[in-house]
Formats: sequence, C-alpha cells, structure tokens
Amino acid sequence: MVLEEYLKTKQERVDGALGEYLPKRDGFSSEISESMRYTLFAGGKRIRPVLCMASAEAVGGREDMVLPIACAIEMIHTYSLIHDDLPSMDNDNYRRGKPSNHKIFGDGVAILAGDALLTEAFSLLSGTIKGVSPEKNLEIIREIATAAGFQGMIGGQVADLRAEGKTVDMETVDYIHAHKTQALITVSIRAGAIAAGADADDLKALSEYGRKTGLAFQIADDILDIESSREILGKETGRDEGLNKATYPALIGLAESKERTRKLVEDALSDIRRFDKKAEPLRMIARFIAERKS
Amino acid sequence: MVLEEYLKTKQERVDGALGEYLPKRDGFSSEISESMRYTLFAGGKRIRPVLCMASAEAVGGREDMVLPIACAIEMIHTYSLIHDDLPSMDNDNYRRGKPSNHKIFGDGVAILAGDALLTEAFSLLSGTIKGVSPEKNLEIIREIATAAGFQGMIGGQVADLRAEGKTVDMETVDYIHAHKTQALITVSIRAGAIAAGADADDLKALSEYGRKTGLAFQIADDILDIESSREILGKETGRDEGLNKATYPALIGLAESKERTRKLVEDALSDIRRFDKKAEPLRMIARFIAERKS
Repeated sequence: MVLEEYLKTKQERVDGALGEYLPKRDGFSSEISESMRYTLFAGGKRIRPVLCMASAEAVGGREDMVLPIACAIEMIHTYSLIHDDLPSMDNDNYRRGKPSNHKIFGDGVAILAGDALLTEAFSLLSGTIKGVSPEKNLEIIREIATAAGFQGMIGGQVADLRAEGKTVDMETVDYIHAHKTQALITVSIRAGAIAAGADADDLKALSEYGRKTGLAFQIADDILDIESSREILGKETGRDEGLNKATYPALIGLAESKERTRKLVEDALSDIRRFDKKAEPLRMIARFIAERKS
Repeated sequence: MVLEEYLKTKQERVDGALGEYLPKRDGFSSEISESMRYTLFAGGKRIRPVLCMASAEAVGGREDMVLPIACAIEMIHTYSLIHDDLPSMDNDNYRRGKPSNHKIFGDGVAILAGDALLTEAFSLLSGTIKGVSPEKNLEIIREIATAAGFQGMIGGQVADLRAEGKTVDMETVDYIHAHKTQALITVSIRAGAIAAGADADDLKALSEYGRKTGLAFQIADDILDIESSREILGKETGRDEGLNKATYPALIGLAESKERTRKLVEDALSDIRRFDKKAEPLRMIARFIAERKS
C-alpha cells in the first residue's frame, strides 16, 4: 500500500461527505454557508479525519461507521483556523494558499462561520451513526467537546495568544502544544476507535500513539514555518519568529527539534506495535508527519 | 404563586448549577474561565433556562431532570451575546449593566470565551442527564444544535448584520426574529418537554407557545430599546434606530408593535389552554414578557 493513494482515497471520501453534510444554500443562508464552505473546502490535508478512519480500521471497524465523526472533527478544526486567523488573534492573511476567511467575508461573518461550523459539528455528531450505540455516541460527543473546549484546544489558543511577544519556558510551550494541537488529534484517533468498539488496552495504546504523533505534527509544523515558503505551504511563513511565538525550534533549536520529532514518531510506532497489518496506515501516517515538506 | 418568587427560585437554581458546571480555574485556564464566567454571571434574567424548566414541569417532569439542559442553553445564549457585542458585529460597549466582555478581556479572548461556552454547552449536554434515555439525550442535542446553528440563531445574526443601514422589509425582519431569538427560546421549551417525556400533542402546543412568546419577547425588547434607558436596561439603548436596525417598531410603529405583542401573548396562552395548573408558570412568564419594563 502506498501512502499517497491511501490519503487520496480517504480525503476524497471526507470531501464528498462534507459536501453532502454542508451543501450550498440559497436565500438568507447563502452567505454564511458560502463562508463556511470557503475554508472547509480550501484544500486541507484532512489529517484528523484520516487518522479517525485509520484508527477505526486498526481495531477492525469500517470507515463508513466513523465518517460523520471524522467530518465533524474536520469542521471543528476548520472553525479553529478561521478564528485563529482573525486580526484579534494571529492576524493571518493567508490560509491554505488563499486569502483567509475574514479577508473575503469580513470579520463579523468569519466569526459567525466559525461558530456555525462548531455548532454543525455537534449537530452531525448527534445524528444517527451507523453501528454506534447511543451510549457510545454520547461518550464520543463528550470526549470531542472536552478536547475542543477551554480545557483543550481553546485553552491552548489562549495560552498561545498570551505567550506572543514574551519569552516563554518549555512548560508553556508544552501546555500550548498539548492543548492546541495534540488534544484534537488524539481525540480524532480515540473517537474512531471508540466508535469501532476498541477495548481499553487498544484505546490506551492508540491514545499514546495520538499524543506523540500530535506533538510530532506540531513540531514539524513549526520547523516548516522556518524552512518552507508561502509558495509551498499556502500560508505565510517565518511568522512565528516575527511574533516571537512559543515553539520548539525557538527554545531548543532546529536540529534538536528534528531529533525530537524523529524520536516521537519512533515511540508512537512502538505504542502500536501490538496491532496487526490493519494498523499499517497509522504507521505510514506517523512516518509521513515527521518527513512532510508541506 | 407570585411570578417574582418563582423566577427568583429558578434563577438561583440555575446560577448555582452554572457555578458548579463552570467553577473558577487556576493556572493556564484562569483567564479564559474568568472571561466565560464574567458574562455568564453578569446578572442575566435566565429566561431561557426558566422556560426550559417550566416546560418540563408543565408536562409533569421535574426541574432537576432538565437543569443541565437549561444551563447548556444559557451558555449558548451567553456565547451569542459575547460575540454579538464585538466591534465587528453590533459593537456594543455595555451588556447587563457592565462593560462588554471584549472591553475587559480584549477581542481575542472574548471570541475564545464565546467559543468555549458554546463547546462547554455540548459537553454538558452529552453528560448523563438523570431520567433521560441516551436516545432522547441525542435528540435534544440535535434540536439545540440546529436551533443554534446557521439555519437557526447564527443565520438570524448574519441577516441582522447584513440588514444594518439598509431599508428592510417585513420578510427580512421576520426571518431575523424567527432565527435570532425565537429559535433558541422555542428549543428551550421543546428540550425541557422532550426530556420530561412530553407526547407529540403536548410538544406541538408548547412549540407554538414558544414561537409566539419568543417573537413577543423580541418585539418587547425592541420597544424597550426605544422607551427605556441604559440605567434601567443595563445596556445602551436607542442603538437600534442609530444603526437603522431591522425591528417591528421601525417598520410598523410603536403602537402597532405593542398591539402585536399583546396579541401574540394572548395566542400563546390559548395554545397551552389544554394544560392544567402545572403550566401556570408558563402562563405567568408569557404575560410578564409582554409587560416587562427592563
């Protein structure tokens, strides 16, 4: 199996499902749905939904059981990007190679489009999910809400916002990464596994894998911000340094950051050693995260 | 039973529960939780949670069955206030008699506090609710997400934002009211009734009551914006006219707006005629909405 093919197939499934869940609208809803769709379909890599589906498959589940969950998580991720790009947050003019949402629709509608994607995610999660019991469905909603909330992703964004322009220590950087990035990536993996009926041991191993690949993903992102360019990445680069952002490269240097990423991926692979070949996509994704160039 | 006493008792129950669901936090979460609590405990009337509990009681349910639902809806209402007050939206400096959230915490944290309250609402809704089956619990989440989303409350706010400074027709005003205000008020009443096990006929009657009291509430609010003052209302008044906001008073005048409110309340009371004295709080609240001075 080649990773590129696997990713392409999954990304197409996710894009197709998102298009069905959030079709174009007429009348009063046309502008807000256009704004929601603008960033949702701006060409994201769909890493979180792919991890969700790959995790379900690793424990013997089927992709279609978790497609609504995977799409809901991508909606939450997209809302966080729209809000993070706002002038009162990171003030980013570009996202996924296109002008940021608020540069097209204005700050007001961009805020509301983010709100709407977040709300729509929970609407989707509370619909009937094939083969998932109502009890498990509620458990999945609870885990996702916690990972996305002020004790998870939002908490990380607040700390990130407050760290700007300050000299920060490793504790702060770790808090930001654990909450802003790792929480949603880990819950993508956990939610897929829970839906597919993973037992406690499998779930624990997959959570560890998620935590480590999530951190590796963030450090790799910070390395790319230094080494890549807007042409390749589709967003402005070199911004972290300008904003004096809290990152691993800023604290421990590029070489050590790369070594840390490599070690995290190695450990993540070790965490899921006990799984059979159905976990092969998870293994490929972990390696891809450490090696990606965009 | 005196309405003031009933409201006071319910408001205290809601405030107590909200304080338990969202306690003060230390460390990295201290600022965001302070910002969330700032507007949540700024002295709102708790109309939506009270309606939710009164509706449950009208069909024979108990208050404690619906307390988490009532509180989740108040969190959603509060998030919408924080975001609506932002400079890129209604640009309101005062809310509930105090400076708006963003005037204290800055736009970035205010946006995140709103996001966090919305997320926390779904976390709360997906917890175990005493006496409510997981199936019904999911149904309640689905209804609330739909009412709060881009086809509900957010859709109304977008239309309201776009109507500013323009001459709008009755169709637009009705769309804005139906979505921005009525949707969340109606779902407060429906969710309470669903949790308490209402049958289809009861639910239909209560939904009609909700739709009409919701609209009456909004028209009364617009009348107060003209006739009251900041001292009484705790927020700036006379702003609708300055912003050329889409309101009933602007379209059909004050006298006709008051008559419309009176008629809506009368019809709402007629909708719940079939209920016994357990629906008395709902009747008192409907009358209160039409007559309130703040």
